[in-house]
Amino acid sequence: MEKAFMRRLAEPKLENPIFVQGLPGFGNVGRIAAHLLIKFCDAKPFAELYSPSFPDYVSIDAKGICQLPRYEFYYAPLEKNNLVIMTGEIQPSFDDVVAYYEVCEEVLDFVETLGCRFIVTMGGIPITEDKTQVYIAATSPRLATEFMEKGAVIYSKGRIVGATGLTLAMARERKLDGVSLLGTTTGFRADREAGFLVFKFLMKSLGKEIKEGLVENNAPEE
Amino acid sequence: MEKAFMRRLAEPKLENPIFVQGLPGFGNVGRIAAHLLIKFCDAKPFAELYSPSFPDYVSIDAKGICQLPRYEFYYAPLEKNNLVIMTGEIQPSFDDVVAYYEVCEEVLDFVETLGCRFIVTMGGIPITEDKTQVYIAATSPRLATEFMEKGAVIYSKGRIVGATGLTLAMARERKLDGVSLLGTTTGFRADREAGFLVFKFLMKSLGKEIKEGLVENNAPEE
Amino acid sequence: MEKAFMRRLAEPKLENPIFVQGLPGFGNVGRIAAHLLIKFCDAKPFAELYSPSFPDYVSIDAKGICQLPRYEFYYAPLEKNNLVIMTGEIQPSFDDVVAYYEVCEEVLDFVETLGCRFIVTMGGIPITEDKTQVYIAATSPRLATEFMEKGAVIYSKGRIVGATGLTLAMARERKLDGVSLLGTTTGFRADREAGFLVFKFLMKSLGKEIKEGLVENNAPEE
Amino acid sequence: MEKAFMRRLAEPKLENPIFVQGLPGFGNVGRIAAHLLIKFCDAKPFAELYSPSFPDYVSIDAKGICQLPRYEFYYAPLEKNNLVIMTGEIQPSFDDVVAYYEVCEEVLDFVETLGCRFIVTMGGIPITEDKTQVYIAATSPRLATEFMEKGAVIYSKGRIVGATGLTLAMARERKLDGVSLLGTTTGFRADREAGFLVFKFLMKSLGKEIKEGLVENNAPEE
Repeated sequence: MEKAFMRRLAEPKLENPIFVQGLPGFGNVGRIAAHLLIKFCDAKPFAELYSPSFPDYVSIDAKGICQLPRYEFYYAPLEKNNLVIMTGEIQPSFDDVVAYYEVCEEVLDFVETLGCRFIVTMGGIPITEDKTQVYIAATSPRLATEFMEKGAVIYSKGRIVGATGLTLAMARERKLDGVSLLGTTTGFRADREAGFLVFKFLMKSLGKEIKEGLVENNAPEE
Repeated sequence: MEKAFMRRLAEPKLENPIFVQGLPGFGNVGRIAAHLLIKFCDAKPFAELYSPSFPDYVSIDAKGICQLPRYEFYYAPLEKNNLVIMTGEIQPSFDDVVAYYEVCEEVLDFVETLGCRFIVTMGGIPITEDKTQVYIAATSPRLATEFMEKGAVIYSKGRIVGATGLTLAMARERKLDGVSLLGTTTGFRADREAGFLVFKFLMKSLGKEIKEGLVENNAPEE
Repeated sequence: MEKAFMRRLAEPKLENPIFVQGLPGFGNVGRIAAHLLIKFCDAKPFAELYSPSFPDYVSIDAKGICQLPRYEFYYAPLEKNNLVIMTGEIQPSFDDVVAYYEVCEEVLDFVETLGCRFIVTMGGIPITEDKTQVYIAATSPRLATEFMEKGAVIYSKGRIVGATGLTLAMARERKLDGVSLLGTTTGFRADREAGFLVFKFLMKSLGKEIKEGLVENNAPEE
Repeated sequence: MEKAFMRRLAEPKLENPIFVQGLPGFGNVGRIAAHLLIKFCDAKPFAELYSPSFPDYVSIDAKGICQLPRYEFYYAPLEKNNLVIMTGEIQPSFDDVVAYYEVCEEVLDFVETLGCRFIVTMGGIPITEDKTQVYIAATSPRLATEFMEKGAVIYSKGRIVGATGLTLAMARERKLDGVSLLGTTTGFRADREAGFLVFKFLMKSLGKEIKEGLVENNAPEE
């Protein structure tokens, strides 16, 4: 394996889907939000991305089966929107900057062939004050304002580290539209509350009101 | 040398051989088990793998002769099974993740051309409790169960770092069968007992009972 | 994005322009001097360089818009000289040496196609003594002497780390002429005074006397 | 610059030359020995090697002229032997293992085209005891014995880090003959005595007796 490669498991037909990405990071906010989304929408896996830049360890599941690190793609046909959701347990090695660029390109190449023209990345931002909040960064002032009106705070003069920011900024380079939804989190431990908040905000933006407690028990444990 | 390359020293005829890999790592368990296997089976060297990702130092032998870092391949025609055994003094540089993927691919490419359809990787796992045990991870639930019945414990929800896990998980991607045999070890020093236990378990799985003390004095010193 | 790429925003006509580069580094001297130059000359952006070796974070501006790391190229038609000015917020990852070479080559390839035959790199050098000064390194003894006569001190037996030195030394390999203007700085914090001194020295070399205080308030904050 | 490249300054005719390499390292022994050899033989520069894996800083000479990191090749027609001598101020970045392999291959490719069939690498080895000595590693038992008879001690079961060992071991892979001459050194500072000892031993091996004090004042300062 010298390059990243994509394995297709199914060929779902999706009209103008929205791409939603949630990976590990601060408070694991993005990954938790993506898992909630997958559970809530009953999304189905249809593709996997492997890369030699992913960590050099493998996970063993409860039955003892080994599994290479990978990103998993799910699809969910909602009433109003088709969704493509990507998550995974890992990001490229911390200090392999070039790998981040390559993997994000690979992801965008793939979702563009699926017809995605709108990109949502979800993540956490470390905040010392104790206030839960969803921050927003966007590919255009119009989108930033639109999501601000929905209740997010503009992440003005901030900095987003890793795939959450890179995917959005690369999407902008490709003239795609998109936003980063960033949940404030006070620690490095898995922050379910922040993950739930980002998930809830996304669903509301898509026209679904989520009640507290509905999916909380389905969050991944880590 | 810009890429890994394989040097053939001999062209042994091997029918449906099993590939067994033991490299340095926790307690040096994998490497010790591989050396015991080579000694016990009187295996002969027939190929060497060199890679620019291997460490940038050379070893000098007792006669003063320098030697590039490499993986060595041995073959052994047992009664029931032909074996291909790989070992070496090194793994790729700790933080060169891409190199791990490349080298493991290279190894699997090679052993597939030899006709290997079953892969055994041997290694150590750090355990704080003081109980010697062989853990198992596998490419399928059937194999995990089969080796559990032979006395191994399923390494449920574990993680295997480095080539021991990657080679197995990549073998699974290629639809090969295989297992990782993981000896518990309490330290980072060479753990001969754990290495012997893994070796003994493997031989038993292959239909040979090994008595204690038989090969102990042949273990590599490091 | 597997390689660096240049995006053109405009195609200015420039006769025999001088290339001036100022990037972050000790005391941020180079970047501050470049910003002063851009402001003073009312230079216009016309190209951007992106690279997978740039850091894997994105910046969000005041309006919430995300932006990939990049180098920006500006042009300014002065009375006597056309200038091409490059600056940016970042350098390649600290320990990715190959990236430094690649990015500097990319920059020189580009400015040579623009017709630049003279290269100025600006940076800071850490000095423990408390004396502000502009040091000079050059591609030829003639140039070193010429700038010494203008008031700079020859940076004899010194060492220049990062793009400031590499771009100059690579320019010399290409038979281009050039100098590094190095402002002494006592700390790692943004040193506006040193940046101003380098800017002022450059303008004087180009035939413009700059008065103290003229552009001071336009320096970048960081 | 994406790959190493060789610049030729002259095309000396050399019959069956011996290649001698001395680079920075423990006690700077190799580099000091190479400089003594260049001075003593009045060797002339004829080629330079540049590589993007060399460090990303440039050196400024006494006149203020910048210079990319490089390896320099000199030639010297001695009475009995033609010599090709390589030295430099740098080695590839400490943690870029692949670069070490690439640069050593590049060097061997080059010296093979010059007709070199015998390789001498010189370096230092850290020894805690206070005894100056030249150790030897070789490409064959015959050569190890031959140099042992000339007064060197076999570096039995040792390890040589960096280009000094890699070049020798790669030469062996190419079926070239060669030795590493390793001067014991107690510290990391430039060890002129050890450098002189290695130089003297090499000259004696080539049939020249060197008297103490002859070239001592010509050693490089660093």
